[in-house]
Amino acid sequence: MRIAFIGSGKVATELALIFQFKGLHISGISSRNQETGKELADKLNCPFEENPNSLHADLIIVATNDDSVYELDQQLDEKQWLAYTAGAVDLHQLSGGNWGVFYPLQTFTKGRHLGIDEIPLLIEAKDPILSKILAEICLHVGFQFEHCSTDERQKYHLAAVFVNNFVNHLLHRAQVQLKESSLNWQLLSPLLEETIAKLDDYSAFDAQTGPARRSDQRTIETHLNMLSETDQSVYSLLTKSILKSYQK
Amino acid sequence: MRIAFIGSGKVATELALIFQFKGLHISGISSRNQETGKELADKLNCPFEENPNSLHADLIIVATNDDSVYELDQQLDEKQWLAYTAGAVDLHQLSGGNWGVFYPLQTFTKGRHLGIDEIPLLIEAKDPILSKILAEICLHVGFQFEHCSTDERQKYHLAAVFVNNFVNHLLHRAQVQLKESSLNWQLLSPLLEETIAKLDDYSAFDAQTGPARRSDQRTIETHLNMLSETDQSVYSLLTKSILKSYQK
Repeated sequence: MRIAFIGSGKVATELALIFQFKGLHISGISSRNQETGKELADKLNCPFEENPNSLHADLIIVATNDDSVYELDQQLDEKQWLAYTAGAVDLHQLSGGNWGVFYPLQTFTKGRHLGIDEIPLLIEAKDPILSKILAEICLHVGFQFEHCSTDERQKYHLAAVFVNNFVNHLLHRAQVQLKESSLNWQLLSPLLEETIAKLDDYSAFDAQTGPARRSDQRTIETHLNMLSETDQSVYSLLTKSILKSYQK
Repeated sequence: MRIAFIGSGKVATELALIFQFKGLHISGISSRNQETGKELADKLNCPFEENPNSLHADLIIVATNDDSVYELDQQLDEKQWLAYTAGAVDLHQLSGGNWGVFYPLQTFTKGRHLGIDEIPLLIEAKDPILSKILAEICLHVGFQFEHCSTDERQKYHLAAVFVNNFVNHLLHRAQVQLKESSLNWQLLSPLLEETIAKLDDYSAFDAQTGPARRSDQRTIETHLNMLSETDQSVYSLLTKSILKSYQK
């Protein structure tokens, strides 16, 4: 089976390298960004195609942004299977019957390589034959995977925004606060590690501690007075949300 | 040197057990909660004292809530050194000249034991002799530690609310969302691990990804429509805060 990729960003690069490492045949790369596209094709020792319709493949993994998925749905010949990697795109809004979804529930970073067991895949396809092909790829590579409806995948994608994007932003705000006072972020590393490690044994509901959890108004007031306006609104809203979660 | 503890909660228990394991002499426990107090004293094979003034010690670690620290400041004889473990209490609001601070920048959980290198200590004392004693205890035990002013410690404590309390609450909300749809929280574990691991190599500012980071209004709208009212306000505020952080 010949597998090609459209896209040459972080997801395309990571998946294509893993596929090749696991012995799958990468037959070509197409990308609007010719520079990174050719670079990836070179790395994989496969042809680069400017026109995605010139790719020779049985399956094309479309690792682009959401908008490009809709454009490619109009543009691509229906001569092979297609699977996009975007979490939020609704499969049933695409017109081609050859589409499926191959969504890695992970954050990718240029230059960081992840283990195969660190990339869970959510798969879906209009045609059961494609669904089987995508599952077989996961089994071959060793990816953990689940068959998911678009609705379920979108819920995972939304939860991932909380788990990754929002968590990261809170850590950013904490880093800013410490930096402004020339304090040492590294001192908070063990706390951050333990915050996550604790969830192996406890639900986040049971793991909650802190001034909001114990309705400690004095500390909450002190903290609000120490913060910039932006961080005040974040502190205040999350405190309210915690208080609400534990109301009897 | 004889060290006693007031308090029998998670912090008192963890610190006292570590101290004793490291060969320090625990001379007594006092606690308003007689049951847990006696239980801890039994574990340490040391006397339990109902009246904290009956403790025989050169240093008492006061591992109680903030309010009790203020009360004990009034109540305790000034016959030994005192150090409290509360992050938010202002040392200079205590009247006794024998007070110091021994604040572990960590979250403690009943039944979970942490490694000594996972508990950074922030120390401060009115008297330089006590400051030296607290530093020597850290060196003896092997705790990483820093001398901090009350102002600095309060800033660490506030950052810890973001890093632990607020992060945990976001994870709780994600767990609730998934549970409501009978989806599998474990699938998000690798993403959570990677979210944290990435910060070894990148600042949280540089690590930020997601719909808010790329101003993807369509996905933001879709997500808002999927959420309950409480989670909508959290999503909306954090999205705004991210957008603001990356405004040019």
